[in-house]
Amino acid sequence: MSDGPVLRILGRVSSPLQERGQAPLQGDEGGPEATVAFEPDLARALAELEVGQEVLLVTWLDRADRSVLAVHPRGDPARPETGVFATRSPDRPNPLGLHQVRVVGIEGTTVRVADLEALDGTPVVDVKPVLGPVGTRCHNIGDDAAASG
Amino acid sequence: MSDGPVLRILGRVSSPLQERGQAPLQGDEGGPEATVAFEPDLARALAELEVGQEVLLVTWLDRADRSVLAVHPRGDPARPETGVFATRSPDRPNPLGLHQVRVVGIEGTTVRVADLEALDGTPVVDVKPVLGPVGTRCHNIGDDAAASG
Repeated sequence: MSDGPVLRILGRVSSPLQERGQAPLQGDEGGPEATVAFEPDLARALAELEVGQEVLLVTWLDRADRSVLAVHPRGDPARPETGVFATRSPDRPNPLGLHQVRVVGIEGTTVRVADLEALDGTPVVDVKPVLGPVGTRCHNIGDDAAASG
Repeated sequence: MSDGPVLRILGRVSSPLQERGQAPLQGDEGGPEATVAFEPDLARALAELEVGQEVLLVTWLDRADRSVLAVHPRGDPARPETGVFATRSPDRPNPLGLHQVRVVGIEGTTVRVADLEALDGTPVVDVKPVLGPVGTRCHNIGDDAAASG
């Protein structure tokens, strides 16, 4: 793995969630308000974010187990073991987390967001806008590789 | 950046798209069918993926410029320069691509998908299921950090 791409940690989550057990199992079970303190040199990249905007935060789930290839979904032993690529388990070879959140405040390079199910200290590795009506959001989110910049 | 997390390259895209100029600017402009050849040791992680399923492929956009913090959206000089975190530019500090695609074939650890706007040879770094009706997809996609595995 040492020859793979190296992610830059752009900032970290500050959240009341301290342990995995505290995190709701699904987003619609709600998550707390949290802040992300980005590195100061990223101010230009953040400049056009606006309060009220929906964004996708990409995190690195640094407490995940990268050796896990199959899990019992939602940690329920009654559920058959399932390959992690068919689950949302944080335990996976590259533990990237995707979190759609609403920006509720911006102060310098610190961004406050609503309803973030990420643990305190979790590294943030990307931010992407969520575009279009709900029904087309994912389609738009999926276009990064195609955008010509 | 050398102290950041190292991504494992799980597989690579095989696609007729050879250059960024060929890629449609938006997913709804369509993308070709493509295959992803995953490393053989990931067979268990892929086992429960099914033909017809919608998945989110996370890629590493290895032809992107990681030094870019602001762009003219869609490469249009008439559009005001915008911080990359408010755009879908592939040029960004961590060039992660998100692609919602439908699985159309699986053979061993090679997965064929429809409508993938990613260039030939692009590394794939994660695969996540898309759950729920369209209107809630992103919300579910955003739950990785909350899933207890």
